[in-house]
Amino acid sequence: MSGKGGNKQGKKQGGSKGGKQHELAITTRAEDYPKWYQDVVRFGELAEPAKVVKGCMVIRPHGYAIWEKIQRDLDARFKNTGHRNAYFPLLVPQSFIMKEAEHIEGFAPELAVVTHAGGQELEEPYVIRPTSETIIGHFFAKWIDSHRDLPLKINQWANVMRWELRTRMFLRTTEFLWQEGHTAHATHEEAIEETLQMLHVYGDFAEEVLAVPVTRGIKTASERFAGALETYCIEAWMQDGKALQAGTSHDLGQNFGKAFDVKFQNEAGDLEHVWQTSWGVSTRLIGGLVMTHSDDDGLVLPPRVAPIHAAIIPIFRKAHEKERVMEAAERLKEQLSAIDIAPERARYRDFLEVVIDDRDMRPGAKFYDWERRGVPMRIELGPKDLDKGQVCMKMRVDTPACSGKQFLPEAEFLGSVRQRLLDYQDALLAAAKARRAANTVTLDTWEEFEATFAGDESKFAWCHWDGTAETEAAIKDKTKVTIRCVPLEGQGPAAEPGTCIFSGKPSKQRVLMAKAY
Amino acid sequence: MSGKGGNKQGKKQGGSKGGKQHELAITTRAEDYPKWYQDVVRFGELAEPAKVVKGCMVIRPHGYAIWEKIQRDLDARFKNTGHRNAYFPLLVPQSFIMKEAEHIEGFAPELAVVTHAGGQELEEPYVIRPTSETIIGHFFAKWIDSHRDLPLKINQWANVMRWELRTRMFLRTTEFLWQEGHTAHATHEEAIEETLQMLHVYGDFAEEVLAVPVTRGIKTASERFAGALETYCIEAWMQDGKALQAGTSHDLGQNFGKAFDVKFQNEAGDLEHVWQTSWGVSTRLIGGLVMTHSDDDGLVLPPRVAPIHAAIIPIFRKAHEKERVMEAAERLKEQLSAIDIAPERARYRDFLEVVIDDRDMRPGAKFYDWERRGVPMRIELGPKDLDKGQVCMKMRVDTPACSGKQFLPEAEFLGSVRQRLLDYQDALLAAAKARRAANTVTLDTWEEFEATFAGDESKFAWCHWDGTAETEAAIKDKTKVTIRCVPLEGQGPAAEPGTCIFSGKPSKQRVLMAKAY
Repeated sequence: MSGKGGNKQGKKQGGSKGGKQHELAITTRAEDYPKWYQDVVRFGELAEPAKVVKGCMVIRPHGYAIWEKIQRDLDARFKNTGHRNAYFPLLVPQSFIMKEAEHIEGFAPELAVVTHAGGQELEEPYVIRPTSETIIGHFFAKWIDSHRDLPLKINQWANVMRWELRTRMFLRTTEFLWQEGHTAHATHEEAIEETLQMLHVYGDFAEEVLAVPVTRGIKTASERFAGALETYCIEAWMQDGKALQAGTSHDLGQNFGKAFDVKFQNEAGDLEHVWQTSWGVSTRLIGGLVMTHSDDDGLVLPPRVAPIHAAIIPIFRKAHEKERVMEAAERLKEQLSAIDIAPERARYRDFLEVVIDDRDMRPGAKFYDWERRGVPMRIELGPKDLDKGQVCMKMRVDTPACSGKQFLPEAEFLGSVRQRLLDYQDALLAAAKARRAANTVTLDTWEEFEATFAGDESKFAWCHWDGTAETEAAIKDKTKVTIRCVPLEGQGPAAEPGTCIFSGKPSKQRVLMAKAY
Repeated sequence: MSGKGGNKQGKKQGGSKGGKQHELAITTRAEDYPKWYQDVVRFGELAEPAKVVKGCMVIRPHGYAIWEKIQRDLDARFKNTGHRNAYFPLLVPQSFIMKEAEHIEGFAPELAVVTHAGGQELEEPYVIRPTSETIIGHFFAKWIDSHRDLPLKINQWANVMRWELRTRMFLRTTEFLWQEGHTAHATHEEAIEETLQMLHVYGDFAEEVLAVPVTRGIKTASERFAGALETYCIEAWMQDGKALQAGTSHDLGQNFGKAFDVKFQNEAGDLEHVWQTSWGVSTRLIGGLVMTHSDDDGLVLPPRVAPIHAAIIPIFRKAHEKERVMEAAERLKEQLSAIDIAPERARYRDFLEVVIDDRDMRPGAKFYDWERRGVPMRIELGPKDLDKGQVCMKMRVDTPACSGKQFLPEAEFLGSVRQRLLDYQDALLAAAKARRAANTVTLDTWEEFEATFAGDESKFAWCHWDGTAETEAAIKDKTKVTIRCVPLEGQGPAAEPGTCIFSGKPSKQRVLMAKAY
């Protein structure tokens, strides 16, 4: 790498420990899908298991930079919809968790408990927040008196902890980073409207920024958040056919309002409990991003979340060529770095991030390296290109619009690079949608169902279900398949009656079934 | 408030619970300085004590928005100097803290300990990170092999916990938010250079963004970070004459490198321990910001960290006036919101944030309300202003350039508003410097010293010190005064020899003494 400051990151990314990994191949998806996922995360330097802290991971710079881009875009969407950020304590009095009956049942087994502090045993233990409905409910009660204090719309970016037995980087870790929105409203109607609004914020974000197509729907009672009346979700399709719950939005009704006595005086002067919502997405999104786009060569990133948009590989044999090529590379980098690919609506900037890879390695090894990091665009720059005034570029993944190496006059390249990246973004979404479509089936018989979900197999399956918890449990028990969601209108096949795939009883509409992470 | 989304925040800020506070006056500084600070934080709706979680606070939206602005600007400075963000586990194995002898001594008494998780007692307890040198040292050892892996320059934005006995919002809380930089280098020179670079990043940020003048210097051995060879600091002067340590940067030498066996192969092929640094600032900066600028009317905020830059107060008596005034207010808000006051160098945007306060309250009560929130600019807009095509504006604090109400033609106002805010920023820094200068003294006799620091009194005092820990301890014991720092060149009186103010022994240069938070 060359240049100042920011460029040095390249050195780190391609340092000697990274170098060792060049000799290790990524396991293919066909060979061992879970191992492939681990390899992509590890060789892409997104994260690694902490090991010394049970079920935790270290999010490495390349992975954290993706999280920062996720945060920036989502945060702007939250603010556009009238939410403000705040910060509540990490520790929650143990008694708080016990105030909402279903909440206890859902979270008690997963709590990490602080029993000692400042050299003494505590009178009442604290738990590390698994989620913050309880502690925030406590403060809402202090802040809300009147209908004039409503709606109250808060979001928090924070770490939370759930002591899970089986963990997997990004997808399920004991500590994870997330945002949790918490709002209070005067009417149930308004709370439902908020719940749905935030579900669509998540869905739009997933598709527009992560290029991850999602199905928007409602969870069945058994998959509902502990303490909610209704849980809405976005479900993404992973390349092994499994579903990933990528975000949830909960209509909490008055459950927490009653547990924490959050009351307001309505316009008529009567006291009522508030209607609440909560909604969250986490670093799990990065796991979904990885499993949606990556291939057997490693990570693939859409430009809107890529920490590095382009890697320039200077090509030279002789010392006198080096100087000339490096100068041109620096100039090109500077020009590219002034290009802003933020959407029109954005009140933030999204300048292209470009690295020049001048490590003492063969160009082929460098190509390999940046591929594994999912960098959307590679630029090769050699004396011949300079003589011709051209740029040689290649996208990480071939798309209909741009396949293989392209040789472009420099001015044409610079004039088109923004649009090329946006087209690449669209192409990744289209490709993901096509893969999902090819792996989505409509099933009508139990024989088809069993064949579809034999062994470790999974697809997205639209099936009729009789609406009972018994049938849901029996299907899960026999096949590990769960009902991912009852789709919102337009999110699945048109609602029409049929008969349950398992029980043969009447059903109103098809639901989305799949094995899940 | 009117308009969509973002505007609704205004309703919250001025809701009925906020309304109650109108009747409560802020305690004056002269009356009770600590109470004044609490009142400014509380009535400004920056934060409130959590109470149910010992020593913690809830950072309310107006306070958290300041932290977001701090983060955004600092983060850009960190990235410009070649650092990348990452995230390490919240929990640290208890044994890790015990690996560096001085580190144990410094932090063991303040630890919060997790002994149970997932319903079981843990084999080895975890502590909640009080700071992350140990866990990060562990990972540095895994990531560093060769001189080609160095320098490794990481930053983390995180929450940390130190079980303090006496807490005060923002200044000292058991949990706080901060950033901690951690770097590893091949040589001690390079580590020292990094330590100093980051000290100056902090110093420049404090002065340019927070408008808080600071003194840059070196801590004495007794005030050093537990495990460091040398601690550099920025010290800010508070309005009660006390000092606030606002940021620190540590030369860790090879102490943690040895404790966690972080070795690299140098160019000659020999194994050496790395040289490390760490540096941090926290939500404490918000406390310093409050105590630097605020007055007896409440919070005062420099525009670069103000969550809201201007409040428009529509003035009308009759219904038909209302519509006209509100339309004009919306138009003005839209025009102001398109103005970006980010510095030239910034790769982020800093658009003006404007609220229209259309609550059903007297204008005077609204003025009062926005004053307490430190909003830099107030705009009154009534039918007469519209007739004249003018805007009536007033800055929160009078400055030489802009004192009292100003009536300006709308176009002139819009054309000058960016510069007005930047001038206001400069004026706040100049005023803070002037107050500090007026309260900084050079003392040569112990009698003067005792008089200066009698009772609760404090000033910034430049005094000779004989360089011994005994004298330092004796002075602290007798007067509660501590040595804030040995100033870097140009940060205090020119270095010239003298005699210690306490012992009369020889001294090489004056040091900064004050009582401190």
